[in-house]
Amino acid sequence: MTDPRVITRLTPLFDRINQELQSSLASDVPYIAQVSRYSLLSSGKRIRPVLFILSARLCGYQGVEDVRYSTVFEFLHAASLMHDDVVDESETRRGQIAAHVAYGNKAAILVGDYLLAKAVSQAVSNRNFEFIEVLARTASLLSEGEILQLLHNRDAEITEAEYKRIIYRKTATLIEAACELGAVLAEAPPDRRQALAAFGRKIGLAFQIIDDVLDYTTTETELGKPVGQDLDEGLITLPLILALARSGDEERRRILPLILKERRTLTEFEAVLAFIHAHGGVAEAMADAERSIAEAKAGLMELPERPERQDLLELAEFIVSRRK
Amino acid sequence: MTDPRVITRLTPLFDRINQELQSSLASDVPYIAQVSRYSLLSSGKRIRPVLFILSARLCGYQGVEDVRYSTVFEFLHAASLMHDDVVDESETRRGQIAAHVAYGNKAAILVGDYLLAKAVSQAVSNRNFEFIEVLARTASLLSEGEILQLLHNRDAEITEAEYKRIIYRKTATLIEAACELGAVLAEAPPDRRQALAAFGRKIGLAFQIIDDVLDYTTTETELGKPVGQDLDEGLITLPLILALARSGDEERRRILPLILKERRTLTEFEAVLAFIHAHGGVAEAMADAERSIAEAKAGLMELPERPERQDLLELAEFIVSRRK
Repeated sequence: MTDPRVITRLTPLFDRINQELQSSLASDVPYIAQVSRYSLLSSGKRIRPVLFILSARLCGYQGVEDVRYSTVFEFLHAASLMHDDVVDESETRRGQIAAHVAYGNKAAILVGDYLLAKAVSQAVSNRNFEFIEVLARTASLLSEGEILQLLHNRDAEITEAEYKRIIYRKTATLIEAACELGAVLAEAPPDRRQALAAFGRKIGLAFQIIDDVLDYTTTETELGKPVGQDLDEGLITLPLILALARSGDEERRRILPLILKERRTLTEFEAVLAFIHAHGGVAEAMADAERSIAEAKAGLMELPERPERQDLLELAEFIVSRRK
Repeated sequence: MTDPRVITRLTPLFDRINQELQSSLASDVPYIAQVSRYSLLSSGKRIRPVLFILSARLCGYQGVEDVRYSTVFEFLHAASLMHDDVVDESETRRGQIAAHVAYGNKAAILVGDYLLAKAVSQAVSNRNFEFIEVLARTASLLSEGEILQLLHNRDAEITEAEYKRIIYRKTATLIEAACELGAVLAEAPPDRRQALAAFGRKIGLAFQIIDDVLDYTTTETELGKPVGQDLDEGLITLPLILALARSGDEERRRILPLILKERRTLTEFEAVLAFIHAHGGVAEAMADAERSIAEAKAGLMELPERPERQDLLELAEFIVSRRK
């Protein structure tokens, strides 16, 4: 898939974010810089930094420090990914070997801690209490989300509400924070701050739902990680939750053993997939994500008509249309 | 061993710190509170919170928030211990089963992250940038220390300087921060702040050296963890570093295989211990710690003669005299 126009248009900004990440990863301990660079600079869409910068500029920010602070979100994101991959035993990330496989669990845990501390240090240098407060709350919610996910591992009884509670914490909260803190950097009034927070939260929820859908519908080459990985890791996500809620007792009894076992043959995975499709699990999950994106876009119309608003609208579209 | 008088005298303060810890561990996710309580409330000396409070009061702090902020240091400490125990595969901590053994590595990693975020949140509520800056720098140094320790695992070539660089980061920096931030809370002038930071750094270095000595000299019952655990984990600490530096080539060739193997028989461990004692490794390491404590105490005499100064002096003595 070729990149949509908004991504091409924002290339110079993505490049500046990458330069800033590169230069801010110095450490007294070269090994830390090496592992950090492996995790941070390999690939990744820089969605969170760019949302932060666009949100700030949409609120009239004209300073030069938005790129610098935008890396906070990428540090926190990378720290979270490194620890999650250890916890989930995921072997690939963004199409490459996961950091904990390349460098070992110990390095991944400790460099994750380092990046978390780095995010806080970078945020503090902003000298804005609201900025750090939101960031600290976000870090708490992130770990809560991961812990809730762990507690619901292989829990086929998980409800849609519990699923939403988890994905809000593990994914949406950081995207919400990036947008909200853009407004905070711009010293925007509370209504704009809330509008951008809501925009971030809604595209964040959609982002995770679509991620969970893609795990069932795309191919390994497109996704950069094995298809069906969520189920292998014991994650019961929205397409399956919806299908389970819409299926009869007997069918559920038939499919549950396939869902709950540690590993499935390809035939068994395809049976689960057929079950999900038969009950419209994928279509309904996509509809949920699309509703969330539509709401996000509608809410953004309250904000001034500036080029950044158009960028944000197109980024929201990009999220719902992505295939990897 | 009965508690020294300073510990008895400070019992009401320790009790208040414990109450504050207990009440601040509420979470939306009951499981997080449970794992956090297991790690935080089981035992532990609360040395860092009490140093913070005494430092603040020695600098004239008369407010009511010192106990509240003192928990920041215990949260950060607990987070660090939880992750270190996963990394070091330590099975016991403070005389009880380590959190990662009781609840699993995944929970220990994620609840550690939660406690780190909690420390930052608690610190931010203080609304003092210097406070958060020092704390964020401390968190970075802590993870650097653990990573350096990992990089020097089973490194019999490690120098005394490299060892000191590690223990400053992994242990002394947090004790330094507790004392320094007591002065910051009290809005003390720079010279007092520096004097207290130096005091904390010096007792912190001594604290870790003595910890490392005790791993060779005490009994399992006294220590609350197996003797010789450091060597089993591949940690080459000061008593051994000093002995290696003072031994001849031939003797070193004889002892190195016993040091570098993964596990030793009791006879082999006793041979290592005899080697250390033969070269005065334990005595010299203790002398180093005692010098550090003496310097810490001397530096404290620049500060006002108040009851808290006496408490701090006696706490410094307590550290050097402890047997567990």
